[in-house]
Amino acid sequence: MAAEQKESPSNNPGLQATPDEATKGYFMQQTMFRIKDPKASLDFYSRVLGMSLLKRLDFPEMKFSLYFLGYEDQAAAPSNAVDRTVWTFAQKATIELTHNWGTESDPEFKGYHNGNSEPRGFGHIGITVDDTYKACERFERLGVEFVKKPDDGKMKGIAFIKDPDGYWIEIFDLKTIGNITADAA
Amino acid sequence: MAAEQKESPSNNPGLQATPDEATKGYFMQQTMFRIKDPKASLDFYSRVLGMSLLKRLDFPEMKFSLYFLGYEDQAAAPSNAVDRTVWTFAQKATIELTHNWGTESDPEFKGYHNGNSEPRGFGHIGITVDDTYKACERFERLGVEFVKKPDDGKMKGIAFIKDPDGYWIEIFDLKTIGNITADAA
Repeated sequence: MAAEQKESPSNNPGLQATPDEATKGYFMQQTMFRIKDPKASLDFYSRVLGMSLLKRLDFPEMKFSLYFLGYEDQAAAPSNAVDRTVWTFAQKATIELTHNWGTESDPEFKGYHNGNSEPRGFGHIGITVDDTYKACERFERLGVEFVKKPDDGKMKGIAFIKDPDGYWIEIFDLKTIGNITADAA
Repeated sequence: MAAEQKESPSNNPGLQATPDEATKGYFMQQTMFRIKDPKASLDFYSRVLGMSLLKRLDFPEMKFSLYFLGYEDQAAAPSNAVDRTVWTFAQKATIELTHNWGTESDPEFKGYHNGNSEPRGFGHIGITVDDTYKACERFERLGVEFVKKPDDGKMKGIAFIKDPDGYWIEIFDLKTIGNITADAA
């Protein structure tokens, strides 16, 4: 049972086998990054990647807005504004785009850092698609910028695209990811 | 119906109302960031935050490993190593921790950048918990470092903690998030 051993605590110092009861019900809800221009980002994440705007929160005193996007059916969202916030925070796997007002029209604004050049840290978000090659052909038609096309480099069948701020988004599908990474599994 | 208008395309330039059929089935699968020491990170994400190690991938030629963690029940994972990769990539909302071998013992290694000081970009991940105050009392007992305790600052009831590399993790619950953000909704 090599597969079980690889992810077992004995093979992974620090790993605790059984989650503490106190963490029951916890879930990974959001990934936040800052954006320069909501118009460009909303276009990209809705039109290119098919996400919906689940909730928008505006903080005029602090001059910023938050845009929560995800793949949930927003037709299921409550009509009451506060209820809709709660509904959004009950969804797994959203992205939270922070817009500090004015960056979109500020000639001095240098843009945000995507974490993949020094100083490094954050790397990317990743989207599971139905078919990586088909998805990437569509991205090319739509003029999306690529970091890596599916046939570039060693890992054939995996792609990286850029969002309007230059953040990386990995693209893969369930039909091929197993074979692509088989040597590493 | 102010709530519907706030997130409507007419109120959000760039937003497309209906997802393209070509994006059907897409989902947000992963958020990747780099870590210095897997022992410290596995301990933190499993023991403190209650995640499980869903899959580990090792790339000896390129000297790095990937640790996928999430809140899925890993008892449901297939025993075959490659099948387990596919199963992992079929789960929403995982974190992918990238470990470049050797950083954990390299005295020259300066650590990773969390994106919240210049140059800014990525901000945080966010975990929905059952009760923010109860969760934070436990985090305090466990010695977790806080960026913001629930009663600090303006947004009472929301907390930010730090992982071993200094990445920020927002902590909130569904009982209170609606009221906390009501003015912004």
